[in-house]
Amino acid sequence: MTELLSDTARKTVLQPLFDSGWEMVEGRDAIHKTFEFGNFIEAFSWMTRAAIWAEKWDHHPEWFNVYKTVEVTLTTHDVGGVSSLDAKMARKLDSL
Amino acid sequence: MTELLSDTARKTVLQPLFDSGWEMVEGRDAIHKTFEFGNFIEAFSWMTRAAIWAEKWDHHPEWFNVYKTVEVTLTTHDVGGVSSLDAKMARKLDSL
Repeated sequence: MTELLSDTARKTVLQPLFDSGWEMVEGRDAIHKTFEFGNFIEAFSWMTRAAIWAEKWDHHPEWFNVYKTVEVTLTTHDVGGVSSLDAKMARKLDSL
Repeated sequence: MTELLSDTARKTVLQPLFDSGWEMVEGRDAIHKTFEFGNFIEAFSWMTRAAIWAEKWDHHPEWFNVYKTVEVTLTTHDVGGVSSLDAKMARKLDSL
């Protein structure tokens, strides 16, 4: 069962993500990061790998792409905010 | 050589696109359409086909995806507005 991250969990789970470039979204309980690649092929290839993980985990990003830039926002709509699933997906995206 | 669409060309080239759901973007010389699919797999599969055409033509969309929805904006940055290349890409996206 996915739940909103508790205040304690936020510190331990989200801090490493903030350290790697994730940020809270202004006015929403969601996290955001901008990924930059060498060109469109690299950017979209990365999105394709991410898409397969997103579908496998049934947890889909909000993302915007133009050329070599991908902006990703993660939140868990079912619980209305950031859950452990978002943190797991964020770590996966960082690792791809 | 890609050029901005002339006023005459806009009427003939863009009207069929407006009829199929494309719209001018407020405050920008760009066209926009929202595509809806059955689910994420269908949406991202369509994006993948579109991505290959975009790269082949060296003309990349600005696009936003969340789950089964893809919002696409087309403009030609080199000429600062809508060109025949955007119209060609819009027709391709409609056909995929």
